[in-house]
Amino acid sequence: MNLGTEWLVDAEGCSAELLRDIETVRGVCEEVVSALTLRVVGEPVWHQFPQPGGVTGLYLLTESHLACHTFPETGKATFNLYCCRPRPRFDWEAVLQGSLNAKLVTVRTAARGSEATIDQASLESELSTFSAAREVSGR
Amino acid sequence: MNLGTEWLVDAEGCSAELLRDIETVRGVCEEVVSALTLRVVGEPVWHQFPQPGGVTGLYLLTESHLACHTFPETGKATFNLYCCRPRPRFDWEAVLQGSLNAKLVTVRTAARGSEATIDQASLESELSTFSAAREVSGR
Repeated sequence: MNLGTEWLVDAEGCSAELLRDIETVRGVCEEVVSALTLRVVGEPVWHQFPQPGGVTGLYLLTESHLACHTFPETGKATFNLYCCRPRPRFDWEAVLQGSLNAKLVTVRTAARGSEATIDQASLESELSTFSAAREVSGR
Repeated sequence: MNLGTEWLVDAEGCSAELLRDIETVRGVCEEVVSALTLRVVGEPVWHQFPQPGGVTGLYLLTESHLACHTFPETGKATFNLYCCRPRPRFDWEAVLQGSLNAKLVTVRTAARGSEATIDQASLESELSTFSAAREVSGR
């Protein structure tokens, strides 16, 4: 029996200012939760690291967990979404471009929990590049 | 700039009783934290799901995060350890065999945050099998 799917999402070229704004990053996570009808158990945990650091958020879900970390000093952010129950693929590229002004988003998928499905082939990598048409000043 | 390493750890053939015992699973996480001198921010979050479910634990770390989920109904457990700062490899096989009576432990490693390092080759898979010499009744 498979124990579900984990998405490893890495965003580059984001606005440092947005990566430091805990409400902006929280908004991304809330959009993931809402779009995939995830059920949050208890209160999500958020932490703002001292300058020049970013923020970390952790959501305990009935479906497993959602985690995010931002790194304003390099314009990057990482997300983990682990769902032990089936969920469709979230449109990380569009949301991270729109919310954080990400220029490059990488989404990898890993099957969890079953030896038969754990090998190099179970990890799919997708690369999406944006034309950076949006202006950061628009935010 | 790389944003660190994530270890995806999947254990099979564990004792269902141990997977339901939140103190046992918490003990595994505390051993990870101690062995790698990780710095926990705030209080770890733990949740026990109703029978026949298992437990979930989330640790917000200065070095990123540690997450675990157990599935007693299938004898499995999954762990994520994401360290944005360098840490040595934890001996997951020995600890999960000793603590949860795991018979098979799979450890995968994923580089995070840098497009140049994100591809299939960045994911290393290791399989370790145990002889199951330990008796569950020994616990």
